[in-house]
Amino acid sequence: MFNIVVAQSGGPTAAINASLAGVVNAAINCDEIGTVFGSKNGIEGVLGENFVKLDNIFANKENLFLLKNTPSSALGSCRYKLKDSLSDSSDYAKIAEVFKKNNVGAFFYIGGNDSMDTVMKLDAYFKSINLDVKVIGVPKTIDNDLCETDHTPGFGSAAKYVACTLKEIIADSRVYDLPAVTIVEIMGRSAGWLTASSCLLRANGEVAPHLIYLPEAEFSIDNFISDVRKMLELHKTVIIAVSEGIDAADDRYSNFGSATSAADAFGHKYLSGVGKYLEHVVSDVIGCKVRSIELNVMQRCSSHITSLTDTNEAFEIGEAAVTEAISNESGKMMCFIRESSSPYAIKIGSVDVTAVANKEKLFPKEWINLDGNNVNEKALEYFLPLIQGENQIAYLNGLPVHFDLKELL
Amino acid sequence: MFNIVVAQSGGPTAAINASLAGVVNAAINCDEIGTVFGSKNGIEGVLGENFVKLDNIFANKENLFLLKNTPSSALGSCRYKLKDSLSDSSDYAKIAEVFKKNNVGAFFYIGGNDSMDTVMKLDAYFKSINLDVKVIGVPKTIDNDLCETDHTPGFGSAAKYVACTLKEIIADSRVYDLPAVTIVEIMGRSAGWLTASSCLLRANGEVAPHLIYLPEAEFSIDNFISDVRKMLELHKTVIIAVSEGIDAADDRYSNFGSATSAADAFGHKYLSGVGKYLEHVVSDVIGCKVRSIELNVMQRCSSHITSLTDTNEAFEIGEAAVTEAISNESGKMMCFIRESSSPYAIKIGSVDVTAVANKEKLFPKEWINLDGNNVNEKALEYFLPLIQGENQIAYLNGLPVHFDLKELL
Repeated sequence: MFNIVVAQSGGPTAAINASLAGVVNAAINCDEIGTVFGSKNGIEGVLGENFVKLDNIFANKENLFLLKNTPSSALGSCRYKLKDSLSDSSDYAKIAEVFKKNNVGAFFYIGGNDSMDTVMKLDAYFKSINLDVKVIGVPKTIDNDLCETDHTPGFGSAAKYVACTLKEIIADSRVYDLPAVTIVEIMGRSAGWLTASSCLLRANGEVAPHLIYLPEAEFSIDNFISDVRKMLELHKTVIIAVSEGIDAADDRYSNFGSATSAADAFGHKYLSGVGKYLEHVVSDVIGCKVRSIELNVMQRCSSHITSLTDTNEAFEIGEAAVTEAISNESGKMMCFIRESSSPYAIKIGSVDVTAVANKEKLFPKEWINLDGNNVNEKALEYFLPLIQGENQIAYLNGLPVHFDLKELL
Repeated sequence: MFNIVVAQSGGPTAAINASLAGVVNAAINCDEIGTVFGSKNGIEGVLGENFVKLDNIFANKENLFLLKNTPSSALGSCRYKLKDSLSDSSDYAKIAEVFKKNNVGAFFYIGGNDSMDTVMKLDAYFKSINLDVKVIGVPKTIDNDLCETDHTPGFGSAAKYVACTLKEIIADSRVYDLPAVTIVEIMGRSAGWLTASSCLLRANGEVAPHLIYLPEAEFSIDNFISDVRKMLELHKTVIIAVSEGIDAADDRYSNFGSATSAADAFGHKYLSGVGKYLEHVVSDVIGCKVRSIELNVMQRCSSHITSLTDTNEAFEIGEAAVTEAISNESGKMMCFIRESSSPYAIKIGSVDVTAVANKEKLFPKEWINLDGNNVNEKALEYFLPLIQGENQIAYLNGLPVHFDLKELL
């Protein structure tokens, strides 16, 4: 019998707690596992031995249900990156000490590419010192940019939020009898998956968004202006989905105040986002009614509208991670393997985390049209199963009820 | 037997189509009413005789249900303001001619303060020429700023969206172990009702937002900075709700590019909204992690999360408007009279539209705290009944199904 530690890392999502619930549920039901520790703020909580016991709290099924539908990271998060153990092994030694002291036999890290770097490094270190602690990664990111998995938990709910909200924004945009442009800025610094998922509205016959710009396609302001002009001839209201990560800065338009001519220290090219910047370009050059909308953190935390497929899969991949560790595997990331899109069939497997850590899966260029301003039917076929089903969530006083770890600790 | 015309005007909401559904449903079931015409794009559709017959479409109960849960204005909208009939009566003469030609005995206008101006002027004109057309206003606005009614249809759903989304944003904001400020910008140019409704989270024990700034209270950047500093001593993550309409422009911070030192021709003081402007102030002066979020049009069009109380009331006040016209009343706006908050009891009445047109009901100063940076328990008591209950909406392919007038016409 050994204990386990589970932690969450990176940007939160609407499904990351469903994966936590899956890990905890499988561990509670596993005879070989004793205490289930949650580490607060990711690997920082391990370094500081800042643990909370989760098994008692979540033996209560109602708490488990609430956790599954609670947005953000219940255990907190961090952006801590371990140094190379050859140059500085102090963090590793501390982690090994904490794990030995607490009889920890397996560590589960729920996160994205950076978190898989931690999984990879810890696994290599433990093997190098012959410490028997299994290290398993559970994928998570709304960016859907992890390699070696069909998709990532959290993405389906974000895509559902984006598509549903876009549908409402489109309805709102069409009320006046005037030519108008609406620009919706969607998350994704280098991968355009979430922006591309705006094509989901086609499943129910909606042709908008009429233009979709991804970081994977080359962008030029001149082509953009020409695209918008063409679409205004065809549609009274033109809807544009644009990824926050496209490189649209152009010195000719640097006087708008919302774009800086050069990137700042953090690589941000716009004071107010690319959507606001393009809004000023349309207003200045074309001169029609135009507005921009940033979906902001709502696209990753809107637990009141999540994909049932996504949260169920997030739960199951968390459970599968425990089975993986019990089967004596380590240095793996759990993954989804798609067997069919229609009918949708998926199985859960695992891959060497070295194939995932610090790598990025971009949106396929062959799913982007020749003009670089839209996506094709392959994209819709891929996205559609991921947003199916709606979660029924609990409400009290007209407001969603979330699980609040603070209340219990 | 006479025909009726119904139209929608002003900014759309998530409940304005529920009022349309109410008018249509009552008219269909009224023996004295023949054809139910919908006028496209508000009063502009009357001037252009741009009508659609609604009775056949909505005799189908499924269409009526879909319409009730469809965001935005199904009949389109306008911002057209009638000139004073004494200075130029040409519009009035045209409207009278169109109504006579189509045997129209009653006109229902669903809208806000500006739309009630149209109701008032048309009623006065028809009376002056002895034309027997009843003119009834049905209130609508997420701003909740109409006089002589306890609240306005559309507001409860917007408040529910704001509170639910804020709850999720708060969860998202708390994941890192760092001092941080999150500023949420909420609609309301001169009335702070919707921003104030962020206090709803207190009903379930959430103390955030810690600071609430409304247009009705005086704002100074120096006090704002001092407020934020104090809150950062008490809370790791400080949440701020700010109305888009507060006057925060300050020449000392005009170099941020997101605030102009003077208002532009449309009265806009910021290129990117007050939230972004205050984000730059916090970043520059306090220097902690800070972000701003604009809830934008989602707060008025998010039909996937509406208040059942609001949409039911919106439907009922639409039905009551028809009864009012049948009772030979004209020049009235329908209104809600609150009899009790707990248990919630409301009745529908009517008021002279002259008491509403072009007037504005501001958030009560006595519900704002002395420091002008929060609201008291009277506000919570007022808001709470308005967000109760959730609508079950129809989904197809994982996406909400809306009624699409274009499909049927």
